[in-house]
Amino acid sequence: MQFSKWHGLGNDFVIVEPEKNPGFDFRGSAEHLCDRHFGIGADGVVTVRPLGGSAFEMRIYNSDGTETEMCGNATRCVGLYIRKNKLAAGSEFELHTRGGIVRPKVLDNGSVRVDMGEPHLLRGEIPVAGDPASGAENLAIELPGRQFSAVGVSMGNPHAVIFVPDINAVELEKWGPQVECHALFPNKTNVEFVEVISDRMVRMRVWERGCGVTLACGTGSCATCVAGVVTGRTARCITVLLDGGELQIDYSLNDNHVYMTGPACEVFRGQYTETR
Amino acid sequence: MQFSKWHGLGNDFVIVEPEKNPGFDFRGSAEHLCDRHFGIGADGVVTVRPLGGSAFEMRIYNSDGTETEMCGNATRCVGLYIRKNKLAAGSEFELHTRGGIVRPKVLDNGSVRVDMGEPHLLRGEIPVAGDPASGAENLAIELPGRQFSAVGVSMGNPHAVIFVPDINAVELEKWGPQVECHALFPNKTNVEFVEVISDRMVRMRVWERGCGVTLACGTGSCATCVAGVVTGRTARCITVLLDGGELQIDYSLNDNHVYMTGPACEVFRGQYTETR
Repeated sequence: MQFSKWHGLGNDFVIVEPEKNPGFDFRGSAEHLCDRHFGIGADGVVTVRPLGGSAFEMRIYNSDGTETEMCGNATRCVGLYIRKNKLAAGSEFELHTRGGIVRPKVLDNGSVRVDMGEPHLLRGEIPVAGDPASGAENLAIELPGRQFSAVGVSMGNPHAVIFVPDINAVELEKWGPQVECHALFPNKTNVEFVEVISDRMVRMRVWERGCGVTLACGTGSCATCVAGVVTGRTARCITVLLDGGELQIDYSLNDNHVYMTGPACEVFRGQYTETR
Repeated sequence: MQFSKWHGLGNDFVIVEPEKNPGFDFRGSAEHLCDRHFGIGADGVVTVRPLGGSAFEMRIYNSDGTETEMCGNATRCVGLYIRKNKLAAGSEFELHTRGGIVRPKVLDNGSVRVDMGEPHLLRGEIPVAGDPASGAENLAIELPGRQFSAVGVSMGNPHAVIFVPDINAVELEKWGPQVECHALFPNKTNVEFVEVISDRMVRMRVWERGCGVTLACGTGSCATCVAGVVTGRTARCITVLLDGGELQIDYSLNDNHVYMTGPACEVFRGQYTETR
């Protein structure tokens, strides 16, 4: 099985083309492939399948074997992967994901700007429990011994953005999984804790649904910007500081789309040789 | 840079041949190559260089960038690597390490039996502080709030074997680094906590010097058997149960050598493509 190993700010993926590996069960193998001691080691397995022209199907399997709708860091990696391997002409591509269509564009400096589409803010769209037609900008999350106020946002996948005064004081591994599985989120949720440094800069740490703590989350950064804008905490164009590096997020007033700009890096290409 | 990724019971290595990658600084790159998000991801980088005939030089760089004398799981992987890639004739090889010469033999069933040589039990050999000519079978290790009794053994690298009544009750991440850096061990030490299940079977968990908790440690398993024999706790031929699987260890009465038998597995081969 041929693969390529990429990361976007340390959020790392095994990228594979099913057409080059006929018969290989990527979904069923994702948990083993992602194992960092016995497998290749990654946060997820990403499949890329050409749909004609500049369009591709992208599927994402988490390290726990589940499938996820969308992953922002993976969209940057896949954009540069398509460009580097000349799978389509030009530098702008269309990725069809279970969370919608996103459009990465490889910039001249090698970083990737992705049109992540429109955010969704209604409970029925995210999803969040309660009236499907109402907003989710002020969710009271009651946990044993602690209460958080979260903003619910969908970027194709669900996010709970929690603004806190001091990000270093948050016990991410303790509260992350409890918010992820809170009854307010019928499909569970990604969880972002965010400290606003200025109206143009925030510091964010993330607990990813199905993954746990990761070094960076692209859709979470987008959701954070949207949450910052709708609650009046930030400008529309911000820098998000993550454990793995930084992203530029622009929640455009023109088209209501969210644009994410950041790096993508291929580390190695490989041939999986294990016989199990 | 061409490499191959292997593991022995989940203790995983990037195996490289410097002759096929001239100019690549493996020592200086080890920390990055071992990084599980930004690099290839491994417990260590192992270099294999032919010395003529069935003899090879093997060097091991830890994930923290330091060099280590010896690694039992790596010797099994390198034995099978040499055999699989036909770097020498036959199925028995000689590995020259900084911790001495060891001899892996690939068995018909694909597992690898390694002659790990003689253990060293004197303080000056391990090394342990105190009279260099005296033994180290009863070391009192005083730590804040806790005392352990350890057996010092060298298998080319230093080990502190600590027998405990209940392995599950040991806080490995708390006590491991404190024993590793205790003043008794001038070169630091690997730390094995061991529960004797029967005189032919033990359960072991390991804190590796320069690595932290790993799923298995070959030299630690050998040291455990030696410590079991010299303190009268086990027979000479035992099964060691590790988090990553099991090893057979035979401390031979015939030649005073320790023989370790266990699996080795190639997971993938790769081409490192990152430009930093």
